[in-house]
Amino acid sequence: MSLHSLLTDRRLILASNRGPLSYSLDKEGVVKQKRGGGGLITAVDGMLAATDDALWVTAASNDAERLLAQAGKPVGSTDKSYKVLFADVAEAAYADYYDGVSNGILWFLHHYLFNPAYEPVYDGAFPKAWAGYKEANYAIATEIIKNLAGDQSGIVMVQDYHLYLIPERIRQESPETLISFFHHIPWCCADYFRLLPGGYRNAILNSLLCCDVIGMHTWRYVDNFLDCCAQFLNVRIDKEAHSVKVGGRTVLVRAYPISISPKSLTKQARSAPVVEMAEELDKTLNGRKLLIRVDRAELSKNLLRGFQAYELFLERQPDWIGKVTFLALTYPTRENIPAYKSYIQAVMRKVKEINARFSTPTWQPIELNIEDNYSRSLAAMSICDCLMTNPIFDGMNLVAKETAVISRRDAVLILSETAGAAEELRDGALLVSPFDVEAMAEKIEQALTMPEKEKKARSERLRQVVLANDAVKWLTHQLDDLVANHPNQPANSLTELAQ
Amino acid sequence: MSLHSLLTDRRLILASNRGPLSYSLDKEGVVKQKRGGGGLITAVDGMLAATDDALWVTAASNDAERLLAQAGKPVGSTDKSYKVLFADVAEAAYADYYDGVSNGILWFLHHYLFNPAYEPVYDGAFPKAWAGYKEANYAIATEIIKNLAGDQSGIVMVQDYHLYLIPERIRQESPETLISFFHHIPWCCADYFRLLPGGYRNAILNSLLCCDVIGMHTWRYVDNFLDCCAQFLNVRIDKEAHSVKVGGRTVLVRAYPISISPKSLTKQARSAPVVEMAEELDKTLNGRKLLIRVDRAELSKNLLRGFQAYELFLERQPDWIGKVTFLALTYPTRENIPAYKSYIQAVMRKVKEINARFSTPTWQPIELNIEDNYSRSLAAMSICDCLMTNPIFDGMNLVAKETAVISRRDAVLILSETAGAAEELRDGALLVSPFDVEAMAEKIEQALTMPEKEKKARSERLRQVVLANDAVKWLTHQLDDLVANHPNQPANSLTELAQ
Repeated sequence: MSLHSLLTDRRLILASNRGPLSYSLDKEGVVKQKRGGGGLITAVDGMLAATDDALWVTAASNDAERLLAQAGKPVGSTDKSYKVLFADVAEAAYADYYDGVSNGILWFLHHYLFNPAYEPVYDGAFPKAWAGYKEANYAIATEIIKNLAGDQSGIVMVQDYHLYLIPERIRQESPETLISFFHHIPWCCADYFRLLPGGYRNAILNSLLCCDVIGMHTWRYVDNFLDCCAQFLNVRIDKEAHSVKVGGRTVLVRAYPISISPKSLTKQARSAPVVEMAEELDKTLNGRKLLIRVDRAELSKNLLRGFQAYELFLERQPDWIGKVTFLALTYPTRENIPAYKSYIQAVMRKVKEINARFSTPTWQPIELNIEDNYSRSLAAMSICDCLMTNPIFDGMNLVAKETAVISRRDAVLILSETAGAAEELRDGALLVSPFDVEAMAEKIEQALTMPEKEKKARSERLRQVVLANDAVKWLTHQLDDLVANHPNQPANSLTELAQ
Repeated sequence: MSLHSLLTDRRLILASNRGPLSYSLDKEGVVKQKRGGGGLITAVDGMLAATDDALWVTAASNDAERLLAQAGKPVGSTDKSYKVLFADVAEAAYADYYDGVSNGILWFLHHYLFNPAYEPVYDGAFPKAWAGYKEANYAIATEIIKNLAGDQSGIVMVQDYHLYLIPERIRQESPETLISFFHHIPWCCADYFRLLPGGYRNAILNSLLCCDVIGMHTWRYVDNFLDCCAQFLNVRIDKEAHSVKVGGRTVLVRAYPISISPKSLTKQARSAPVVEMAEELDKTLNGRKLLIRVDRAELSKNLLRGFQAYELFLERQPDWIGKVTFLALTYPTRENIPAYKSYIQAVMRKVKEINARFSTPTWQPIELNIEDNYSRSLAAMSICDCLMTNPIFDGMNLVAKETAVISRRDAVLILSETAGAAEELRDGALLVSPFDVEAMAEKIEQALTMPEKEKKARSERLRQVVLANDAVKWLTHQLDDLVANHPNQPANSLTELAQ
C-alpha cells in the first residue's frame, strides 16, 4: 500500500483560517487569485502531489471569497492537487472571530503578551465576540461535514488557534473520522491560560480532546497543554506517554516541529531575480558586515529590544561604527490592532534615535524596511553575516530554518531560547534570553567576530538539522500517528511508506 | 521532649526583609520603635512564646536601623521572646536590592505583571542592581553565620523573595544547619520564569536548593517550582514525593498555606475602638448593604476590574442604585515605582467616573480610602455583607481568611480562583476569574441577594477551614518537616509535640 493509495482510499480534508489560495475583487469587480505561502502550504504541496481529491476548507475573509462561498463550489489551480472551499462567514462575525477572539485574545494569551494589570477585560461585549468565533468555526465545520458526506473513513486535519471549536463538531457528526489538530503558535502554561475565563478555556480544551492527535512544535508546549488538561478538566493525563484518556479514547499530544521544503526554497533563493537582488544589496554594503532580521511587525518578535541591543553594542564597541549595517526586513501585520500600532511607533522612534545618534555622512546604522517583499528577504538571508531572531515567545520561527539552508556566508544565528526553533537548533545557534539586552549586544559582537572555522561548523550543524526534518516529515509523522492511534486501522507506518 | 526544649536545644534564627520591629529617627534624631504585623510575625509570636533566644535578622532599611546595625547588638521588646538584629546595608545597595530587584523585577515576575513586549529590559544597569541584591542578602547571611557561631545544630528559616541568595551562603559556611525557605508570593510557571535571564534564575534556584525544606502557599506553586528545577537545572525532581535530589541531599518542596491567629484577631476585632468604628460605619450606611475590599494599592490586587465589575452591576441592576455602598480600604504601597503611580491614577479616574455617573444627592456608589488604618479595616470586615477579593494573582490573601473569622454578618466572599486562598476556601467562597468583569458583576448580585441560610452555610465552611489551619500550624508543619527530613535528627513530630 503506497502513501498515494492510502490517501486516495481516505478523503483528506484540511481546515485553516487561510489556505493556499485567496481571492479579492479588483477595482473592476473581477475576482483575482493570490497564492499563499508558509510552512503548512509547502508541506501539503509536497505531500499531496500524488493525490487528487484533497480538500482545503477556509473561512471567507472578504467579499470575493464570500461570493465563492455562496456559489458553494470548491475552487482550484491547475498546479495544485487539491481544491479550496470557502465557508461563508458574515463580515461582522468574521471580524469578531479573526480580530476580536483569535488575534485580540488567543494570540496574546499563548505568547504571554498581555499586560495583566489592565488586560484582558471580559466585559459585556465579549460573549458577542465569542459567538462570532463560534459561528466562523461552525461554518467551516459544516462544510467539512457536508464534504465527508457520511464517509467516516476520512481524515480531517485542523490547523491552529483560529479553529479550536471544529474538532468537537466533527466528532459529534462523524464519530469515526480521524481528526488531528496542529497548533502553530506556543501553548502557554496553565497559570497563564487562566487569563481566559473557565467557560471559554474548557470549551477549547474539550473540543481539542475530540481529536485523535494534537500536534505542537515542541515538547515544552506539549507539557503545557497536558498541564492545562490536568488542571482544568476531569481527565487522566499521562506525561510519559504524552496522552490524555477521555471518553474511552486516547488522545496523543506530541511535538511535530514544523519545517520548510529545502529543495523548493533553495530553488527560489537561486532564481535570477533573487540572486540579482543579493548582488545589488552586496554592492551597497561596500564591504560592511550585514546583520539582518526578517519578521512580521509583531509584538512577539521583539524588534524593540533587538535594536536596543544593537545600540548598546555600538555604544560599547565604537570601532564597529561604519562597519556593519543592521537591515530589518519587517512585514506589515495586524495594523488595525491598537497595541500593534503603538508598538511599531515605538520601534520607529527607537530606530530614528539610534540612526540620529550614530550615523556618519556615509553610513546609517539601521535600515528599517516595512514592506512585504519575500524575494528581498531571501536575498538578504543568503548573503547576511548574522541573522537576529530574538522573539519574546515564538511558536517555531521558520526564518531561522530558512536562513540555515540558503545562507551562502555561514550566517551566525542569534536565537531566543524561547523560540520553538531553539529546541532543535540549540547546538548551532547562539542562544540568548530575549529580555537580556546586554547579552544580545554581546552576541552581536561574538557573531561579527566569529572565526570562519567556527561559523562553518555551527552553520553546518544548523543546516543538517533542518535537512533531516523537512516539512513533508512534519506532515507524515502526524498522519502516521493518526492512523496508528486509531484502533480500527492497519498499523502500517505512513512514514515508512512515504520514504 | 517538648516543643520548648526542642527549640531551646537548637538555636532558631529567622531572616526576612522586614521583621516584627522597625525603627526610624524622629525630627529630634531620636530612635523610635514601630511594631510590624502580618501572618509571619503573628505565627512566630505564637510559636516562640516558649523560647527566649530566638533571633530575627533583617536588613537595615533607613538611617536609624543602620545605626542599630553598626552598634552590632540585637534589639528587643519586653513582650517579645526573641530579639531583632539589623544587618548593615548601605543606602544605595538597599535601593537596588529592595526597589530594583525585589519589587521591580521579582515581584512582577511571580505575579505575571510584566507587559512583555516592553519589559523587563536587562541592560547595562541590571548587573549593578543585582550586585546590590547580592550585597543585602550576603550582609544578612553574614550576621546569621556569625550568630550561629559554629554551632551546626541551629535552625535557619529564611523568608521570601527578597532573600533568595541566603540559603547557599549558610550551607557553605555551616553545612549541617537545618535551613528552610518560605515563599510568601506565588511561584510562576517555568515559561514565565524565563523572563529572568539564565544566570540570575539559576543563581536563585541553586541557592534555594541548599535548603532542606522549601515552603509555598499552594501545591500549584510547588508544581511550578519543581518544573523550573527540571527545566533549568540538572537535578532529579520527584513530583509525587514533591522533592528534588541534589548533591546527595533531598530537598522537600511542600505547600504550607499561611494563615492567621484567630484568637488574637478576634480579640482585636472585639476591642472597644474597633467596635465603636463599626457602629459608626453602620450608622452612615443607613440600611444600605456594604460591599468592601481591603488591600494594598497594588497592581496585583485588581482594583480596576473590581470597580469595572461594580459599574457593570449598577448599569445592569439599576434597582441597586442607592442601596449598596462599595467601601474600598486601600493601603498606600510602593509609591516610588512608576507603574504603581500610573495604576493608582487609573483606579482613581475610574472611581471618579463611576461616582459621577451613578451618584444621587444622598448617595455615592464608591468610597475609596487610601490610608493605612487597620482598625478601620477590621471594623468594616466585621460588618460587611460582602468582601471582594479579586486579585489577578496573589500568594495567599489573608484578608479573605481574616474576614471569615471576624465577620458578624456571614459576609459572602467573592474570591479570585487565582488567589492562593482559593485552594482552601473554594467550597465557601464564590470563585471568579479575575479577568472576567462580567462574571464578577454577576457575583456581586448573587452575593447581595443570597438567602440568609446559604450565607450562613458558606460562611461557616470558610470559618471552619481557617480555624482548622492557623498560623501556628503553618510554622510547626515546616519545623516538623525540617527536622524529619534531616537524617541525623530524631523523627519526633513537632506537630504532635506542639499540640
